[in-house]
Amino acid sequence: MTFCAPQGFRLAGLACGLKRDGRSDIALVVSDRPCAVAGVFTTNRVKAAPVLRDQALLSRPEPLARAVLINTGSANACTGQRGLDDAHASAALVADLLGCQPEEVLTLSTGVIGLPLNMEAMRRGIVALVPALRADGWPEAAAAIMTTDTRPKLASARLSGGAVIAGMAKGAGMIAPHMATMLAVIVTDAALPAAQLGGLLRTSVEASFNRIVVDGDMSTNDTVLLLANGAAGANVPDPDEFQTALTAVCTELAQAIVRDGEGATKFVTVEVTGAATKTDARAVARQIAISPLVKTAFYGADANWGRILAAAGYSGVDLDPARLALWLLDAQGAPAIQLVAGGEPAEYDERAAIALLQTPAWGVRLDLGQGTARSHVWTCDLSHDYVTINGHYRT
Amino acid sequence: MTFCAPQGFRLAGLACGLKRDGRSDIALVVSDRPCAVAGVFTTNRVKAAPVLRDQALLSRPEPLARAVLINTGSANACTGQRGLDDAHASAALVADLLGCQPEEVLTLSTGVIGLPLNMEAMRRGIVALVPALRADGWPEAAAAIMTTDTRPKLASARLSGGAVIAGMAKGAGMIAPHMATMLAVIVTDAALPAAQLGGLLRTSVEASFNRIVVDGDMSTNDTVLLLANGAAGANVPDPDEFQTALTAVCTELAQAIVRDGEGATKFVTVEVTGAATKTDARAVARQIAISPLVKTAFYGADANWGRILAAAGYSGVDLDPARLALWLLDAQGAPAIQLVAGGEPAEYDERAAIALLQTPAWGVRLDLGQGTARSHVWTCDLSHDYVTINGHYRT
Repeated sequence: MTFCAPQGFRLAGLACGLKRDGRSDIALVVSDRPCAVAGVFTTNRVKAAPVLRDQALLSRPEPLARAVLINTGSANACTGQRGLDDAHASAALVADLLGCQPEEVLTLSTGVIGLPLNMEAMRRGIVALVPALRADGWPEAAAAIMTTDTRPKLASARLSGGAVIAGMAKGAGMIAPHMATMLAVIVTDAALPAAQLGGLLRTSVEASFNRIVVDGDMSTNDTVLLLANGAAGANVPDPDEFQTALTAVCTELAQAIVRDGEGATKFVTVEVTGAATKTDARAVARQIAISPLVKTAFYGADANWGRILAAAGYSGVDLDPARLALWLLDAQGAPAIQLVAGGEPAEYDERAAIALLQTPAWGVRLDLGQGTARSHVWTCDLSHDYVTINGHYRT
Repeated sequence: MTFCAPQGFRLAGLACGLKRDGRSDIALVVSDRPCAVAGVFTTNRVKAAPVLRDQALLSRPEPLARAVLINTGSANACTGQRGLDDAHASAALVADLLGCQPEEVLTLSTGVIGLPLNMEAMRRGIVALVPALRADGWPEAAAAIMTTDTRPKLASARLSGGAVIAGMAKGAGMIAPHMATMLAVIVTDAALPAAQLGGLLRTSVEASFNRIVVDGDMSTNDTVLLLANGAAGANVPDPDEFQTALTAVCTELAQAIVRDGEGATKFVTVEVTGAATKTDARAVARQIAISPLVKTAFYGADANWGRILAAAGYSGVDLDPARLALWLLDAQGAPAIQLVAGGEPAEYDERAAIALLQTPAWGVRLDLGQGTARSHVWTCDLSHDYVTINGHYRT
């Protein structure tokens, strides 16, 4: 899909010394006019300084934003008053250079917890970023927010009225899905009142990022921001069309995060059908998706469906083992091979199952045989590379 | 510690073809007289056939047992009516050969889910086991129940009155701690009425096996059995002394399971203190112990304490980040290095921390600063070998 950029936004990304290896490490997104803004933040009790600051700013009535500064190298979490001071000083410097208020500058951080921001590098970076801002600076900005990501993540959608929604995200350690920092900045030149923005964002996040980052399992820094500057014209877009387009952008970014999960070799959709309630379906899907034994079997292309049934069995949902049915789904999500019927092994071709599991994208569908509710999550496998990356991330 | 065997029990373990590589794969424990018996079983909704059968047998008033048959190679789970029939047929054959009732023979299974028992091999094994039974057959039996375990697990304790408690266990995949099969058979020649046995076993399991297998996260097959045959004499032991000795045996076996966890290179005690309630303390300890990011940092000997605080932060417990304090504990459980004070980095020697983390056994203590309740769990790290073992376990 061709990426299209909304009007009135400029971006930049570059290296200022926050990463030791000289890769780009700081990014700035600026709107040429004030934006209505909404955010969804981590539910972790331990929140990073930028999360606390952004939440306070967005809790004001009708908040406006002009810029979002994103740094890597330090999460600026567990850094106390100094962390809050550093976040504010970074925003104030951006505001000085742009000629706006510090309260109009949001900041996002990702990296090691407990490490204070390297403010000397931050200042150097901010001063260099402002003159580098360009309407087509999306690739540089998306590259600069990467940590263990292997590729930048961009997505966009065009509304019928001509307005555009575009976003960038970083993820990488979503395999758990515990605690990896997931950051996303989505902007639009559509004219949307702040009062609507929050609801639209929450609905789209629920259908996208929250399918990979299950509520309550977020990092100290997870943040999704949505900025609307109205540069495409004063006409308010149809809310349904905007919601659909926003969900499409969020879903593309969320799936890109899973596909680029730390060490991931497989993109797996875990579907649960036939549940009594949606909550049940989601709890079972989540338990399957986070089980290390299931995830290592995914990695090994092992049709070890017993681990999937066992994970469902300890999800806390009251299920009847004799009613369980399990299918492998092809890349399009269609049932390809039935592995389990009535809680017992079905007749299937093991070689065909392994061949499917060796492809890069497939799914599993577990039917609970209890009702009509369904849910799904997107996940990836647990590989040797995940252990390598996380056993030696900091040292 | 020297292993001592209780009177009136004979054991055997040998190879009957359930494992493809010719290792021993089936074990039998027999008492020369009927035993009072109690069991603790998996809480997984998907329960293996032997678990269902054993639970039914033990739910009768004052159940008696003469023997426990344990097979590897198949978990006999998700095998429907055929699985129940196979479990019963195996028990009936043992009973025939011993001259007791099938209802006095309990069975335990571990291995792949969904694979029916190889009954031809089982019959061959049972017929060979009975003449091989010996009072000193413990090492052979403990070796025969191993799957991905790298060493047999035995423990014993002698009571002041002369009676003995002895047990064997298998574990290995406890790292998650999801779903690995944990089996333990503990026997004593003390005279204990069935009415007391269940309570004693549950108390000791709570302090030992449940510190590694958290309730609700058990496999389809997890089982701990306690058999008491009274062969040491009719005197009922002091309940407190028996409880203490039983807990010691269970703890030694439980810790041995963690030390021999799949791919484990570190034995880590996760202690949580200063909690408002014991439930809170346990929830936080458990969340830390199951976090893949924390476990890979343990593997990499990385003092990446931010991951520990972040795991605590999403445990669901209402905690105040500014009150958190974290220490590394030495092998004796004493605080060695303080990493965090008041939610922020403490001054510490990074090289000393890494040196401690590179030793095979240590701990972490997180103080929540909220109250006086505490709890702990034992866990291990997440290594490349874990992924190798579980990515290719079945194929």
